[in-house]
Amino acid sequence: MLSLRTAAYLEKKNKFLGASSDWENSKQVILGAPMDYTASFRPGSRFAPYRIREVSEVLEEYSISLNNCLDDIDYYDAGDIILPFGNVEKSLALIEEVAHDILSDGKKVFTLGGDHLISLPLIKAYHFFYNDLAVIQMDAHADLRFDYMGQTMSHACVMRRVTEIVGDGSLFQLGVRSGTAEEMAYAAEHSFIFPDQLLEVAGQVKKLIGRRPVYITLDIDVLDPAFAPGTGTPEAGGADSRQLLQMLHKLADLHIVGFDLVEVCPAHDHSDITSILGAKILREALLAY
Amino acid sequence: MLSLRTAAYLEKKNKFLGASSDWENSKQVILGAPMDYTASFRPGSRFAPYRIREVSEVLEEYSISLNNCLDDIDYYDAGDIILPFGNVEKSLALIEEVAHDILSDGKKVFTLGGDHLISLPLIKAYHFFYNDLAVIQMDAHADLRFDYMGQTMSHACVMRRVTEIVGDGSLFQLGVRSGTAEEMAYAAEHSFIFPDQLLEVAGQVKKLIGRRPVYITLDIDVLDPAFAPGTGTPEAGGADSRQLLQMLHKLADLHIVGFDLVEVCPAHDHSDITSILGAKILREALLAY
Amino acid sequence: MLSLRTAAYLEKKNKFLGASSDWENSKQVILGAPMDYTASFRPGSRFAPYRIREVSEVLEEYSISLNNCLDDIDYYDAGDIILPFGNVEKSLALIEEVAHDILSDGKKVFTLGGDHLISLPLIKAYHFFYNDLAVIQMDAHADLRFDYMGQTMSHACVMRRVTEIVGDGSLFQLGVRSGTAEEMAYAAEHSFIFPDQLLEVAGQVKKLIGRRPVYITLDIDVLDPAFAPGTGTPEAGGADSRQLLQMLHKLADLHIVGFDLVEVCPAHDHSDITSILGAKILREALLAY
Amino acid sequence: MLSLRTAAYLEKKNKFLGASSDWENSKQVILGAPMDYTASFRPGSRFAPYRIREVSEVLEEYSISLNNCLDDIDYYDAGDIILPFGNVEKSLALIEEVAHDILSDGKKVFTLGGDHLISLPLIKAYHFFYNDLAVIQMDAHADLRFDYMGQTMSHACVMRRVTEIVGDGSLFQLGVRSGTAEEMAYAAEHSFIFPDQLLEVAGQVKKLIGRRPVYITLDIDVLDPAFAPGTGTPEAGGADSRQLLQMLHKLADLHIVGFDLVEVCPAHDHSDITSILGAKILREALLAY
Amino acid sequence: MLSLRTAAYLEKKNKFLGASSDWENSKQVILGAPMDYTASFRPGSRFAPYRIREVSEVLEEYSISLNNCLDDIDYYDAGDIILPFGNVEKSLALIEEVAHDILSDGKKVFTLGGDHLISLPLIKAYHFFYNDLAVIQMDAHADLRFDYMGQTMSHACVMRRVTEIVGDGSLFQLGVRSGTAEEMAYAAEHSFIFPDQLLEVAGQVKKLIGRRPVYITLDIDVLDPAFAPGTGTPEAGGADSRQLLQMLHKLADLHIVGFDLVEVCPAHDHSDITSILGAKILREALLAY
Amino acid sequence: MLSLRTAAYLEKKNKFLGASSDWENSKQVILGAPMDYTASFRPGSRFAPYRIREVSEVLEEYSISLNNCLDDIDYYDAGDIILPFGNVEKSLALIEEVAHDILSDGKKVFTLGGDHLISLPLIKAYHFFYNDLAVIQMDAHADLRFDYMGQTMSHACVMRRVTEIVGDGSLFQLGVRSGTAEEMAYAAEHSFIFPDQLLEVAGQVKKLIGRRPVYITLDIDVLDPAFAPGTGTPEAGGADSRQLLQMLHKLADLHIVGFDLVEVCPAHDHSDITSILGAKILREALLAY
Repeated sequence: MLSLRTAAYLEKKNKFLGASSDWENSKQVILGAPMDYTASFRPGSRFAPYRIREVSEVLEEYSISLNNCLDDIDYYDAGDIILPFGNVEKSLALIEEVAHDILSDGKKVFTLGGDHLISLPLIKAYHFFYNDLAVIQMDAHADLRFDYMGQTMSHACVMRRVTEIVGDGSLFQLGVRSGTAEEMAYAAEHSFIFPDQLLEVAGQVKKLIGRRPVYITLDIDVLDPAFAPGTGTPEAGGADSRQLLQMLHKLADLHIVGFDLVEVCPAHDHSDITSILGAKILREALLAY
Repeated sequence: MLSLRTAAYLEKKNKFLGASSDWENSKQVILGAPMDYTASFRPGSRFAPYRIREVSEVLEEYSISLNNCLDDIDYYDAGDIILPFGNVEKSLALIEEVAHDILSDGKKVFTLGGDHLISLPLIKAYHFFYNDLAVIQMDAHADLRFDYMGQTMSHACVMRRVTEIVGDGSLFQLGVRSGTAEEMAYAAEHSFIFPDQLLEVAGQVKKLIGRRPVYITLDIDVLDPAFAPGTGTPEAGGADSRQLLQMLHKLADLHIVGFDLVEVCPAHDHSDITSILGAKILREALLAY
Repeated sequence: MLSLRTAAYLEKKNKFLGASSDWENSKQVILGAPMDYTASFRPGSRFAPYRIREVSEVLEEYSISLNNCLDDIDYYDAGDIILPFGNVEKSLALIEEVAHDILSDGKKVFTLGGDHLISLPLIKAYHFFYNDLAVIQMDAHADLRFDYMGQTMSHACVMRRVTEIVGDGSLFQLGVRSGTAEEMAYAAEHSFIFPDQLLEVAGQVKKLIGRRPVYITLDIDVLDPAFAPGTGTPEAGGADSRQLLQMLHKLADLHIVGFDLVEVCPAHDHSDITSILGAKILREALLAY
Repeated sequence: MLSLRTAAYLEKKNKFLGASSDWENSKQVILGAPMDYTASFRPGSRFAPYRIREVSEVLEEYSISLNNCLDDIDYYDAGDIILPFGNVEKSLALIEEVAHDILSDGKKVFTLGGDHLISLPLIKAYHFFYNDLAVIQMDAHADLRFDYMGQTMSHACVMRRVTEIVGDGSLFQLGVRSGTAEEMAYAAEHSFIFPDQLLEVAGQVKKLIGRRPVYITLDIDVLDPAFAPGTGTPEAGGADSRQLLQMLHKLADLHIVGFDLVEVCPAHDHSDITSILGAKILREALLAY
Repeated sequence: MLSLRTAAYLEKKNKFLGASSDWENSKQVILGAPMDYTASFRPGSRFAPYRIREVSEVLEEYSISLNNCLDDIDYYDAGDIILPFGNVEKSLALIEEVAHDILSDGKKVFTLGGDHLISLPLIKAYHFFYNDLAVIQMDAHADLRFDYMGQTMSHACVMRRVTEIVGDGSLFQLGVRSGTAEEMAYAAEHSFIFPDQLLEVAGQVKKLIGRRPVYITLDIDVLDPAFAPGTGTPEAGGADSRQLLQMLHKLADLHIVGFDLVEVCPAHDHSDITSILGAKILREALLAY
Repeated sequence: MLSLRTAAYLEKKNKFLGASSDWENSKQVILGAPMDYTASFRPGSRFAPYRIREVSEVLEEYSISLNNCLDDIDYYDAGDIILPFGNVEKSLALIEEVAHDILSDGKKVFTLGGDHLISLPLIKAYHFFYNDLAVIQMDAHADLRFDYMGQTMSHACVMRRVTEIVGDGSLFQLGVRSGTAEEMAYAAEHSFIFPDQLLEVAGQVKKLIGRRPVYITLDIDVLDPAFAPGTGTPEAGGADSRQLLQMLHKLADLHIVGFDLVEVCPAHDHSDITSILGAKILREALLAY
């Protein structure tokens, strides 16, 4: 069970597809982290957890690619963390505490952001349980700045902070096509970076990681804006949806222990295509990991 | 000539590109079937025939790919069927009657939906004239459910109903990437299904069909939502526009006798890109089939 | 308690503000009826119940105008009726059965449509319990046609059907500014109609109705489209939001037994202003009636 | 009949409500003038004639306010003038020639713009037949500049040009709430201007005009942008739709000989509320003038 | 001159109408404060200063209502404060410091928000110079909560904080139509509140204030969402644009020393009508105060 | 320095990324040409230069692909040409004069349109300085009509006019997938055309051009509308963003002397993806050419 304290931080407004209400038997827990106050360009990703759950009803629970069905597994939708808007420090602490509590009970957390900074407390919580944690980041941006406008806690710096936790050689950056020269230099020393490459380096990444426990953080802007217009900082020239879905399938034989999807921004979406894609990504992740 | 009775069911509000007003010499007839009341998620495809005609003016009448021009052929735009909103049974009967009447006069019908259920009465009418009819369905969804929410007449069941008319081994399902396990099992026994494949199986499909008369039904959601956001139930991970257009060209040496384009939904489109693509698809179909 | 049979027809996806989960103590029940298949122009009102609940969080639970707070009353959100898309007859029967069941337990129903046809089964159910029921309709359209495109069950005919149930002199039509000459003639004989008038005839309407039990059906298009763009058939020249809210307050000393809000259509809204207004209307209705 | 020469300048893409195809018996002719190349801010009004006709189907043909029905009058929809995009001079000449030809046959022209400059050739044509023509302009902007960015033929100068044709004391400017000090000074000498006033000066304007033949030119931006967002240069603070409709009714006992509606811009509209209002305005004008 | 230190906090991206570049002779200074991280519902007001300046070109510099022209006054556009995204405390300090510096040089500041919290540091800076400062707030919401989700620095609490600075009887709240019972009780003791009233209480407010120096803070949501859809928390039932503009004119004979316009949110606007209105409000404020 | 005369034609409203204010040391000059009056379908590209500059802030100044940074080069943003709306002839003359003046000072011009007609005066100016100029056009449309609706100066004819300046064998048309049979015939004789091909013919084009000076004109509609919905005449079936960016990189070893990007139309964009792509294209062009 979630501790009483943690349960009080959560609210359930709607739920993902046919999520179970049986906490005990659920190995996977969906969590919403609607924090977006460090967005540097267009905020609004706070509405992603709600909208992704809403549009999930357009999907089947069965995945043809995986030949597997959500009906056959138990997954719990814990709702969203109630965050103090504008208070970054306290928000990060809350996210970490909730994640820690879920992990204590032996579950995997599948988190819906929010902006990319939410991955930091999640990875912190995971690192407590898995000290050889590897992190796979799929993202258009390196997010390796030391600080952004003087702030070290920003979605533009989140992977820099992550490397400080997981250590050198533990971050794998895929699909990156935007960054500063300084970030590229930092990556050369501290992470494995694969600029503008995704599906084509799956094998290589898997070989490097081996059996280490893996946390996947997926910034939806790794896709070309044609496929994911609903995001805060669209960056032209990325992968397409099919490649991303195939990539997620290819990683399934790694030892995936956690997953998040961040930076979906419904206010800039149209026809809900980014949110619907987000829901499909979450379904595939639940079925595959 | 259309029978007086059928003519009374039709209204012409606008017309496709330079459609001829010469019924006698036209071998091809454009027909609008603005029915969308069985849509399970977002309705609104009733506006597709009007909008597709409207935006057709952005196109040339000449196709570079086909080196052929609409000016050189006669095609008639019969307008839209006036449907009793909300009455599914009567609407289906009307569509079938109009199609039957056009076919009786030796024409081919190129229908603009409406939701996918409109293909049922059209294929019924065709099957009367072509009893060895093969049907090629390009679609993100299998549409093979026995019923949906208790309804057997739904766009989610239309291909199940079609198989009941044309018989086993006569339905070819391309591009399907969403369905239930039951639908997949049904397909395995009753249709030829090519999950998530389109252009790459053109040759195989053509070999299987041979010289049978072919009806093509194209659900625009076979495309990735990036290319066709204006649809009711977008499903991430599909083909791109160019692949679809090439596929249509590749099928041209089959014995195509009928064609429909369904599930374009202008209210969820942006910049009219789905409708403009729909108009281009119709132009290519008129020139190629 | 709701009967088991009725409960099975309902699903809860999200809920309105701080709705209670205590059926017994709740005198008021919110019900969603997401039916829109008889819409003559733009469908999509099926999404209104979900969206209105979603945006309700932008509101306070306290109403300054009424000096009253939702925290101080118990109201239950029963969720939405699961409808067979495209089957009008069965849908109407389901709505009536559910409403009947709620009324049997001595509650008032506050229904969110859906298109205007949903008011028919609701009023039928109410008429069973209140045989001297008066109906106040606020609407841009008379909805008094005998049939529409041959259909007698259409949102364009709903008030004609209602007069057939409640009898002459029991329907009060306010704000009407669109109709045919035939409808106006019918109204002259069978209803009290106040073309293009709302707030200014409150006193007169109240005098005519006296202590009869009253059902209020509010078509959001009674407002000028500036205030409620998110609707299927916008009609220029209506009331503003403040006048409508004041009208709802003025009617509070009538014996209101039921209420519905119909024709909100989120796909044509912008900035959710129509849905947010819808949520405020529902709050005021819950507090006042 | 229209001259052959003029007929060749016209194309019919769709038509307004139940417009007659009987030229001879029609006293009123609808004409589209899709010219928008002199727009100073946002172009796109060229699409207004098409869209206004399209959405006209949402309206009844009967007007409750006027107790009159389009079914009972004959009005002809002549379609749109085919204009040479970008060639202002030639476009103006074409519009004048077509209008002249229609007037020669004793009809009244009801023109849908296009930007406001189209009123110039129309008023020129009218002035030829009615040399004591009075012009009522309802508009947020004075449009009295001598030139705009060096151009004398601009929508920002059109009423200055009109005064040069009809002479001093023949232009009545209502609702104006934007202009330069120079324009106000010019108006003081050459026109009757009623800043920010519309319905409240109806009586005064009618008294001033008496039995002179009147041309009404209605720039949709006379309304507050809440009621007509779909326009090129929205100006906050105007009238509401109901006031405008009432004003049109009040002017009906003048000797109205011509009417145009300009500056509707569908690309900046939402939910088509501006186009639907435009269609209602045209219906009321046809029934009243 | 601005201090070097303050100048370094500012960036100029675009400018308002014909703003002067002559600091010395300018008595009025436009300042952008693009902070929106405490928004409780929809963020995005950070883009308002840029967009309002952009669309200002649609306006004349002359105001018909005031018979006065921006050409005849000198006003300086200082650009936007460069804020550390997500750091509320530091952002507030920066805004206060910049405002203090401008006031030190004897200018008036006209600030474009940003969310409503930006008014707090501005009023702090003003209070330093004017210790009998009165504050007129036009707003749909009371903003008098002690805290919101545990945060005392939130746009929902800003006026509570303001009363703590200016003292009892110095805050005048107009147009308020949303709040909790607690806020109403607080207002009863500490501020003058005029629920749902604006123009009609102008005289009363002016009498109460007399010759005290006045800071006006205008939350655009005081208007009905029809007139200002582009805002974070639209609240149905407010004033119209014309009433607001008249109110601004009526207050001109008070001793106005500062002004801000907050909560314009371009991402939720359409046709830029809220931003264009914002630009007009700023023009009128510059001309009148 | 720019001549005084030319400088007077220009206005700076906002600027591209970190553009230098040092004219002397800048080898590259950004110029906006906001002309869109010859658009045949949807106008509005006049807003592209402003919007592309606005959204450029979402980009890094460093390009990972080119390993090069805008910080390390000097480029000047000259602002936009102030054009007489609606006057095609004079507008073209102004553009040519300004370009000529910039070229006289030994700079390269990087122009943001506007519709495609703006390339004509630019290429005229370039041809004066480079009489063996080759032109690479990437475009969905051939733009080789002799005239359009009787106008020889139209965006649909611009490349025909260009061939008349640069002579046969000097125009290289890539990505073309729309045109008339006449245009194809003209191309066969006068230009090198590569229908529907882009990246795959880079080598061939480069071989044909050799060391001739090259002007690149890029119509954004060369991309599939999924990647660039914000354009006037979307044509389904084009390249994707990544292919286009790679193509721009591949051409870098040619002798590029000028570049323009045309037909971006922000009003039809969504989530600014087309403008953001436009900004990235301009960054890559500045860094590569």
